[in-house]
Amino acid sequence: MGLVVVGSVALDTVETPFGKCTDALGGSATYCSVAASHFTSPTLVGVVGEDFSDEHVALLADHNIDLSGLERREGRTFRWSGRYGYDLNERETLSTCLNVFEDFDPVVPEQARGEGYLFLGNIHPEVQLAVLDQMVSPKFVACDTMNLWIETERELLLEVISRVDAVMVNDGEVRQLTGEPNLIMATSELRAMGAKMVVVKKGEHGCLCDAGGSRFFAPAYPLEFVFDPTGAGDSFAGGFMGYLARTDDLSEPAVRRAVVYGSVLASFCVEEFGLRRLAHIDEKAIERRYREFGELTAF
Amino acid sequence: MGLVVVGSVALDTVETPFGKCTDALGGSATYCSVAASHFTSPTLVGVVGEDFSDEHVALLADHNIDLSGLERREGRTFRWSGRYGYDLNERETLSTCLNVFEDFDPVVPEQARGEGYLFLGNIHPEVQLAVLDQMVSPKFVACDTMNLWIETERELLLEVISRVDAVMVNDGEVRQLTGEPNLIMATSELRAMGAKMVVVKKGEHGCLCDAGGSRFFAPAYPLEFVFDPTGAGDSFAGGFMGYLARTDDLSEPAVRRAVVYGSVLASFCVEEFGLRRLAHIDEKAIERRYREFGELTAF
Repeated sequence: MGLVVVGSVALDTVETPFGKCTDALGGSATYCSVAASHFTSPTLVGVVGEDFSDEHVALLADHNIDLSGLERREGRTFRWSGRYGYDLNERETLSTCLNVFEDFDPVVPEQARGEGYLFLGNIHPEVQLAVLDQMVSPKFVACDTMNLWIETERELLLEVISRVDAVMVNDGEVRQLTGEPNLIMATSELRAMGAKMVVVKKGEHGCLCDAGGSRFFAPAYPLEFVFDPTGAGDSFAGGFMGYLARTDDLSEPAVRRAVVYGSVLASFCVEEFGLRRLAHIDEKAIERRYREFGELTAF
Repeated sequence: MGLVVVGSVALDTVETPFGKCTDALGGSATYCSVAASHFTSPTLVGVVGEDFSDEHVALLADHNIDLSGLERREGRTFRWSGRYGYDLNERETLSTCLNVFEDFDPVVPEQARGEGYLFLGNIHPEVQLAVLDQMVSPKFVACDTMNLWIETERELLLEVISRVDAVMVNDGEVRQLTGEPNLIMATSELRAMGAKMVVVKKGEHGCLCDAGGSRFFAPAYPLEFVFDPTGAGDSFAGGFMGYLARTDDLSEPAVRRAVVYGSVLASFCVEEFGLRRLAHIDEKAIERRYREFGELTAF
């Protein structure tokens, strides 16, 4: 079945101890769609400005991403700028210029409203709800969020959480949402608050999936060199949702495999700036790394 | 084959946000031996003072720990006192009174010198070397260490590392030893420095074993409540070494299973103060948790 991805399309300027890149194609919907494109042909719903280059459009189109939901508006594309130190787990935002993204009012293209799979990237919970209302009867919906919405829009966010099938957040966010420092307790708590499945992204410490009946843990792929963590979480979401959409199988074993594919895609993402690696991998590389994940934890 | 455990026997006073315990039986050799006792009958080599109670001796003896190498000296037993905050990954040492442990000069009992398995707890590298020299031809030796020896006794420590079969350290220590922030790179580096196998204990983030040819990762057991992390690393070592000694199998699959048993024993350790949980588990509980580890990462 098809996958719809809703979120930001951005031009990122990122500094790490290993280099800098300026105005690179990024944003949650971009990373998620490109990662998912290795499994299915996702429909990207986002907004860009007049300055969004044909080259960027071509990169997305070349990945069989349906761009009928990518609105082009008067004004500039969303720009984000950040810096990482040697501890790549911590990042400093240098500037955020929402530009056309400020009034993002996503419209899912008519022909995509019946799709089975939907990823709601980190946008205002009210906008996430509006997108949900446009879909006919999606089979599996996952959402991301961020500290800002947890602080300022808690009620709306809890409504989103109770209406989706999986909440995909990082460890800090699940702790903040529940006020519970122990991560295992926090995921249980979040399920008690209405989440059906909680997928906690812990960066270099892997990923924990709590679906009520059972917990699944996948480590991060052991990389000797992490170049730029930007987009890792959304690439995870893309691998996860892309795999589920392609197989249209929501059994527990399939969800476990989806978590591993998510981890595989995230591991490629962080090996280079922006999309430089993620956009240039093939099925063979993905399958090789998937097998390596199996060898890493098998006993 | 038999296991010899050399290290501290201490009386610990520990404060956590959940309570406090005073003069509880602890120390690296204690935790390691009690954990290993669920697999084999280890020989504990350590030193205590006149104040070491019969009750503590009885607890160790009841676990089939051979105490012929436990020296009793004039003076007081080693005492350590520490405090954990809500972030149980960080601990503050309040006091360290080495007492009789200051001149610890371990003598491995004659009948144990031919044993196949040896764990060198965190003691001065010179003392670790002296113990190594007492053994006839051990089949598998693992050592622990700490930041103090990395700073002050680097050369001796590197000699220990090159003479043992496994270096069992935490993530901070492997980074400090190699000066390499990336953990995967750091373990490779440590192998380049002479370590045959590196087992990195990452606390709540699990354990990574790098044996050159392949890497193995085991997550930490997902505990909803961690009471007191003291002794977790040594309990890990006890489960790991105890399992290897019992099976006398050093194949890669056996080492992987040993890492999981180490993780199982560490998970019991942290569920209560001191030995309160670790000393009261049975084989059934251990096997159940071992199976749960399998279910946690299988895909």
